[in-house]
Amino acid sequence: METLWDRRYAQRTQRMASSVIRELLKLTEQPDIISFAGGLPSPDVFPVDDFKAACDRVLSTSGKQALQYSTTEGYQPLREMIARHTARYGINIGPDNVLITSGSQQALDLIGKVFINPGDHVLTEAPTYLGALQAWNAYGAEYVTVPLDDDGMDTDALEMVLRTGPKFIYALPNFHNPAGVTMSLERRRRLIELADRYGVPIIEDDPYGQLRYEGEHLPSLVALDSQFREETGGSYRGNVIYLSTFSKILAPGLRLAWVIAPQEVIRKLVQAKQGADLNTAVFTQMVAHEVSRGGFLDRHIWLIRRIYGERRNIMLEAMEQYFPSQVSWTHPKGGLFLWGTMPEGWDSADVMKVAVEKKRVAFVPGGSFFPLGGGKNTMRLNFSNASDEKIREGIQRLGEILHELVETTQK
Amino acid sequence: METLWDRRYAQRTQRMASSVIRELLKLTEQPDIISFAGGLPSPDVFPVDDFKAACDRVLSTSGKQALQYSTTEGYQPLREMIARHTARYGINIGPDNVLITSGSQQALDLIGKVFINPGDHVLTEAPTYLGALQAWNAYGAEYVTVPLDDDGMDTDALEMVLRTGPKFIYALPNFHNPAGVTMSLERRRRLIELADRYGVPIIEDDPYGQLRYEGEHLPSLVALDSQFREETGGSYRGNVIYLSTFSKILAPGLRLAWVIAPQEVIRKLVQAKQGADLNTAVFTQMVAHEVSRGGFLDRHIWLIRRIYGERRNIMLEAMEQYFPSQVSWTHPKGGLFLWGTMPEGWDSADVMKVAVEKKRVAFVPGGSFFPLGGGKNTMRLNFSNASDEKIREGIQRLGEILHELVETTQK
Repeated sequence: METLWDRRYAQRTQRMASSVIRELLKLTEQPDIISFAGGLPSPDVFPVDDFKAACDRVLSTSGKQALQYSTTEGYQPLREMIARHTARYGINIGPDNVLITSGSQQALDLIGKVFINPGDHVLTEAPTYLGALQAWNAYGAEYVTVPLDDDGMDTDALEMVLRTGPKFIYALPNFHNPAGVTMSLERRRRLIELADRYGVPIIEDDPYGQLRYEGEHLPSLVALDSQFREETGGSYRGNVIYLSTFSKILAPGLRLAWVIAPQEVIRKLVQAKQGADLNTAVFTQMVAHEVSRGGFLDRHIWLIRRIYGERRNIMLEAMEQYFPSQVSWTHPKGGLFLWGTMPEGWDSADVMKVAVEKKRVAFVPGGSFFPLGGGKNTMRLNFSNASDEKIREGIQRLGEILHELVETTQK
Repeated sequence: METLWDRRYAQRTQRMASSVIRELLKLTEQPDIISFAGGLPSPDVFPVDDFKAACDRVLSTSGKQALQYSTTEGYQPLREMIARHTARYGINIGPDNVLITSGSQQALDLIGKVFINPGDHVLTEAPTYLGALQAWNAYGAEYVTVPLDDDGMDTDALEMVLRTGPKFIYALPNFHNPAGVTMSLERRRRLIELADRYGVPIIEDDPYGQLRYEGEHLPSLVALDSQFREETGGSYRGNVIYLSTFSKILAPGLRLAWVIAPQEVIRKLVQAKQGADLNTAVFTQMVAHEVSRGGFLDRHIWLIRRIYGERRNIMLEAMEQYFPSQVSWTHPKGGLFLWGTMPEGWDSADVMKVAVEKKRVAFVPGGSFFPLGGGKNTMRLNFSNASDEKIREGIQRLGEILHELVETTQK
């Protein structure tokens, strides 16, 4: 039935058309499907009992505060905790540099609202995080891209693209979503140097930084930027806005994330957030603070690392065993995802359809992650959500499909 | 310290400049101030123990679901509960017509994102809800306005403004924020008839509809629109999008509200919400559902009505006693606010400053509520948050200031 609203959509609404991925993901919700398609943490690692105790304590001691409206900036003790945590890495910030958001998705949305004029060019990696594109398309962003390889963003290609004058750089240096790669220290330094030379600021999106399963922690872009000039002595330069989240280290159901930014940027983001949702639920902020206190978070991250690291190993071993040699994949040192590349000319969306129909196994076709198109022969696989057995079983099934396709195309 | 971000703000960010109100409200946070400035529910009515029990039940029975990502549309049993509740009033909708949002502020933001092109004219009442202006300014909305009187929006003035072709009408028929007035049944019918004639759809914002302290419930615009043509037999026509919230009937700290809209509009709002925050915390949705079940919400609303009704009476009596005859005010039949009008030529922002400095009492100067300016001699007073004693004391102090000002201006 037509209503008066139907012809009144804004132009930007055309750019928000429901993604192919979302339609595909609906297929994967049937219970008999083994899905590597989502980006869900494993519910096995949710500290449910700790949450129960924390809810009880928060409501018993501060129930009236927890259920009332609150400040847009976020719950002050949580901002202080994040500032202290950030300072561990030699970045000299205070709670006034921290904004609590309703998930990192809201941080991306507010950044789009505050910085992007229609037609502005945002520099992203290709592939890049789909949620950022979803957020920024609504503000009329256009994109310029730099390719990735096993060492992350290709900084040789970067300089040429920086000359086109993008508004800002969007980078995911650790355990990239979707590509599963990590930017080398050398390239991180080069990125900071080039960004400085061309005067282009950086958004560093780091949801998985603490979920490393091998190798040593590399300094974040925000830390490197702070150390860039010796005379600053590691204080916060402010040219990198840093995003992270409780979704992957505690629980995504809280919808809690944070932004580290210069105070003036925080002020603008706060104004935008006032109009977007007034404030993030203070109850969940207080519960997250209560759960995290006393070293719990460090211990809990250690547990998550062990479980996800094991699942990554199982997936990699199964791929080694079951995938045809014509398919290659990344070896992620952390995070939630790995990235497969099928032979040129294959369409992973078609493979996905066959895989779901014939073998009840799902992944995300990689094409949607490329802002300017391409990547049709790529796929993203999540290894955090399914159980060890399901991972083996699912990769075996997917391998069967891929072997069949290799044979068909060789005929 | 200047950063690379400083010259990169989007044009729309200029329109989000921090409101005068917010600066004023900071003054009112000092503990010795009696503030009628906020719009806060009373924490005395928060059912803290019921929340404690509900959190425990939700985490015990469905902890892993409660802490995981969830659907953008909202927690299905909560959507069903809202659809059933809405159907009580003869509006024939299902859960697919319901979207759960992170507070009504997010509903306003998503509506702006989906419908407003820069330069579009939105028809509002004058005065109107400031949060709507904050949300829609970011999308480049312009405004046309219709005045209010004691019977709500002046529908005689409406027709002329409708001829200018606004995108949609934004109305708060019940216990208006800030004006405290309620739209008469006759005018509600007239509004529906005129909106239909000119083909302009309506956003009905109804956060306080259930908080009526005297008189009988009047049908909502969405119900009247559904009944507008006899042949529809009370089914949902879809030309009115209806907004309401748990903030005023349960607790604002949850950040839970809902939108009733045609399914196609819900789909677009869902796409916009995907980019804005992926989903509202499912934990708080499950807790709100758990608390509300079994008739609790009806009993709780009865309690809130009794307490807020009493506070309204106390404020009205105190104003009668202490305010000079040169000041007039509305007599709200429900909600949280009443609206005062001082003599022409007075500036309520100046009065507010004197009141805070000399008498430690605060309200909101009314000017900001007028999208096209004016209303400088008006003020909004909240009666839900302060205790009975504070209300009497605060109104007495404010009366003293107002008497002084009357004497000064008469000299």
